[in-house]
Amino acid sequence: MKIKLLLVSILLSTAMGISQESIDSDAIEKIKNEGFNNSQIEAIAFNLIDKSGPRLSNSKGYKRAANYATEQLADWGLTNTNLEPWGEFGKGWEIHKSYVAMTKPYYMPFIAVPKAWTASTNGEVSGKVVFVDISSEEDFAKYKGTLKDAIVAVKPSGDQGPTFEPDAVRFTEEQLKEMEQPEEPRGERTPEQEERRKRWMAMRELNQKIGTFFKEEGVAVILKGARGIEGTLFTSGGRGYLKDAPESVSEIEVAPEHLNLLARLNSNGVPVEVEAEIKTSFDESDLQGYNVIGEIPGSDKKLKSEIVMMGGHLDSWHGATGATDNAAGCIVMMEAARILKATGLNPKRTIRIALWGGEEQGLHGSRNYVKNHFGDRETMELTKEQEKVSAYYNIDNGTGRIRGIYLQGNDKVKPIFEEWFKPFDDIIDNTTLTIRNTGGTDHLGFDAIGIPGFQFIQDPIEYRTRTHHTNMDTYERLVIDDLKQMAVIVASFVYNTAQREEKLPREALETSSR
Amino acid sequence: MKIKLLLVSILLSTAMGISQESIDSDAIEKIKNEGFNNSQIEAIAFNLIDKSGPRLSNSKGYKRAANYATEQLADWGLTNTNLEPWGEFGKGWEIHKSYVAMTKPYYMPFIAVPKAWTASTNGEVSGKVVFVDISSEEDFAKYKGTLKDAIVAVKPSGDQGPTFEPDAVRFTEEQLKEMEQPEEPRGERTPEQEERRKRWMAMRELNQKIGTFFKEEGVAVILKGARGIEGTLFTSGGRGYLKDAPESVSEIEVAPEHLNLLARLNSNGVPVEVEAEIKTSFDESDLQGYNVIGEIPGSDKKLKSEIVMMGGHLDSWHGATGATDNAAGCIVMMEAARILKATGLNPKRTIRIALWGGEEQGLHGSRNYVKNHFGDRETMELTKEQEKVSAYYNIDNGTGRIRGIYLQGNDKVKPIFEEWFKPFDDIIDNTTLTIRNTGGTDHLGFDAIGIPGFQFIQDPIEYRTRTHHTNMDTYERLVIDDLKQMAVIVASFVYNTAQREEKLPREALETSSR
Repeated sequence: MKIKLLLVSILLSTAMGISQESIDSDAIEKIKNEGFNNSQIEAIAFNLIDKSGPRLSNSKGYKRAANYATEQLADWGLTNTNLEPWGEFGKGWEIHKSYVAMTKPYYMPFIAVPKAWTASTNGEVSGKVVFVDISSEEDFAKYKGTLKDAIVAVKPSGDQGPTFEPDAVRFTEEQLKEMEQPEEPRGERTPEQEERRKRWMAMRELNQKIGTFFKEEGVAVILKGARGIEGTLFTSGGRGYLKDAPESVSEIEVAPEHLNLLARLNSNGVPVEVEAEIKTSFDESDLQGYNVIGEIPGSDKKLKSEIVMMGGHLDSWHGATGATDNAAGCIVMMEAARILKATGLNPKRTIRIALWGGEEQGLHGSRNYVKNHFGDRETMELTKEQEKVSAYYNIDNGTGRIRGIYLQGNDKVKPIFEEWFKPFDDIIDNTTLTIRNTGGTDHLGFDAIGIPGFQFIQDPIEYRTRTHHTNMDTYERLVIDDLKQMAVIVASFVYNTAQREEKLPREALETSSR
Repeated sequence: MKIKLLLVSILLSTAMGISQESIDSDAIEKIKNEGFNNSQIEAIAFNLIDKSGPRLSNSKGYKRAANYATEQLADWGLTNTNLEPWGEFGKGWEIHKSYVAMTKPYYMPFIAVPKAWTASTNGEVSGKVVFVDISSEEDFAKYKGTLKDAIVAVKPSGDQGPTFEPDAVRFTEEQLKEMEQPEEPRGERTPEQEERRKRWMAMRELNQKIGTFFKEEGVAVILKGARGIEGTLFTSGGRGYLKDAPESVSEIEVAPEHLNLLARLNSNGVPVEVEAEIKTSFDESDLQGYNVIGEIPGSDKKLKSEIVMMGGHLDSWHGATGATDNAAGCIVMMEAARILKATGLNPKRTIRIALWGGEEQGLHGSRNYVKNHFGDRETMELTKEQEKVSAYYNIDNGTGRIRGIYLQGNDKVKPIFEEWFKPFDDIIDNTTLTIRNTGGTDHLGFDAIGIPGFQFIQDPIEYRTRTHHTNMDTYERLVIDDLKQMAVIVASFVYNTAQREEKLPREALETSSR
């Protein structure tokens, strides 16, 4: 019913010259039918998440997932499927044992995750905990010569009171309306902002020196309060993956409730002891980073040399199985590719899927792919292939359904996307197109060298509160219905991009190289 | 300002014969001042929670907390402070090591807590996980002879999707209004309810038999999916504390995300292996259960033989430090006792504080105290002392502030409590007195033998979602301001009860023995 009305309105508006976009409603219906009635979302999710395990860049889990994805895409009939190296990433790393508990004044096992690329402890270590508070280089003197084989605790976390806000939310109509407004242009930094930036830089530098100091002093293990609450903790990792990175002291991120227990006991004069064992291994056999690539070759003689790209990062952090960050994006992109093959639509332009590595360490996989294929953002030397890419679509905001898209400042695509969203009125509330940019993930590399790169607006669900980068980013956190909606919309956008007479309009490069 | 207006209204209403309750406003002001300006809540909380550790009945942690409380009450000038035995509870139990992780297809440490009073594993055990699904006794045959030294997994948990409701809530005005209505009398069980009850009884019986079967078959360790979400898990314990309880197989309650990971891998044909080590010890040196008792002796010659009681249970489960269940209640009661001493009010009747043991295993401490001192609920043989107790006030609903009180069917106390709540209009929203009963905790034993026993209505905060019985019931979960409010109100109610001309009106015993 909706579809019919829509068709009429599209025909009318086209006839009236309001819009140049025609939509192949039959194709969209086929995509919807395949995505909602023959979904493979759960099977893809199981394979990427539970079966592969944590997908830290260059880890065995990453390789399991990348191999599965490559083979699965080929099985569905994609071509040129391969694990494409993008350059040197660094060392693989695995956890083989992770255990830490308070043993005095009483026994309490801790919820904790070793920081990524951290070293092993020397077997099981145990003993008194030394609380170290270093706020400037002068403080090193206080501890010099006292930390040999010490179990060191640093940085208890902040307040952990009850949470009166829900962990999971969807955007409200008001929030989406607000998002439609252009952002206030950022002025010069205020003196306070400048001051804060300087303090942050100084702290970062000090933290590096503290790491070196602990290593030189022969510290046995470092316990650090993690961000998080009630059993959920946010993990992290340093730059220990780099080929020449020195081995650092074993460092464990501990649930704030448990680290703060140690800290409160200590500050009230109660001696605390801990036992801990971390066993990790590094793998330097292959320092290359890899992206997963596959294609649906274009069917139109003239247009098949042009490309529509879609992707998301396949790597995750190591404390859980990275279900929402970002198996979700890969599941959606793989399912969209499957839908496009299964519907037999034979798109005119070539469609290329890319699942990126090394995102969590600095968008390495996508940035290097762009550099290798399309152009160097430093020199702005571009390849011929750069011209041929119509658009790149990315998913990396968790499991929440699509509510719209960030136009990344490209207002020429707005009327096009408006038409393309219309067939989804029944599965999107308050479809929102915002001229705003969104950052932090893999579309940026494309955007930087003038290829229209887009990230969809997604409902947040628990992304910031409970899932991304945490030890609880597990299969349970997926909202399967939302993933189905995303896959159908992405498949449609990619298909429309592949069928459109022209490539998507680009911004002038001067303004798009942010 | 509020106080003055109130005084006038009390005088007026008394003069008009509307109420017989006079309130000593000076005393209430002193209580408020002491509770809000000289609070010891945080110090008491630290000692009961962090310093004592988990307070499982008859554990060393329980004894540390009970000893601290006894000494602290004496330090504040209470008399007759002692650890009073209430009868045989059973064995003490400690955890010395708790570790479980998946080792194949990849390494993943689990969030898990051994079930209370469970046995040790035979050192570290490791190997393939055997999934056991027993839904009737006939199923035993399927596994007979196959489970020797097996790591058995049972009962994956239910759905663990995102939580769109906040973990922490306060009662709304509407909810409190609804609570003021009398409950619908419970009719006979419907056939469906009867059916459900039978199924539940049968399941309980079967579970006992399964336990025995696993023991006989020589199972190495049982992994069981716990209730909970995102790192929070609800712990439990069987009846292994009883003197003659046989040693059961080591059993670990595992975060549902982790047990379900094993289950999903297994059901998709991926072999899973686990390593686990549980080390526990039993202590049979003293099977007695103990309550903490202390008194503020009455100052009125005639009335000092009469008693006002207040209390809460001191024991907790073992997965965390039992901050809200129920250190909170003990903190409030201890602080109320301290306030009453510090203000020098010298109440007429004797005030007795009781911190109960064995509540989590069946309200044992309070029920046996009532039996030992006041009467037997079975025979309804009552002591002379029973006559002398005016009321018992209990706190055991977590850290949330007082919003009113359950009258436990005793409508004669309603006008009295209404007057007593008036000085707290400024710190209670929508004060609610409900004729309803509330169950599940230590006032029931008093109520059952005709002593008016009351439990306050408290804001839920995170009690049901995140804290009571969980591994995350830690110091962080306390809302200190709410505890202060509770202590001040409890101290006032206890003081008013001690000063009142008559003891509180009682219900006829026939109707109160529910």
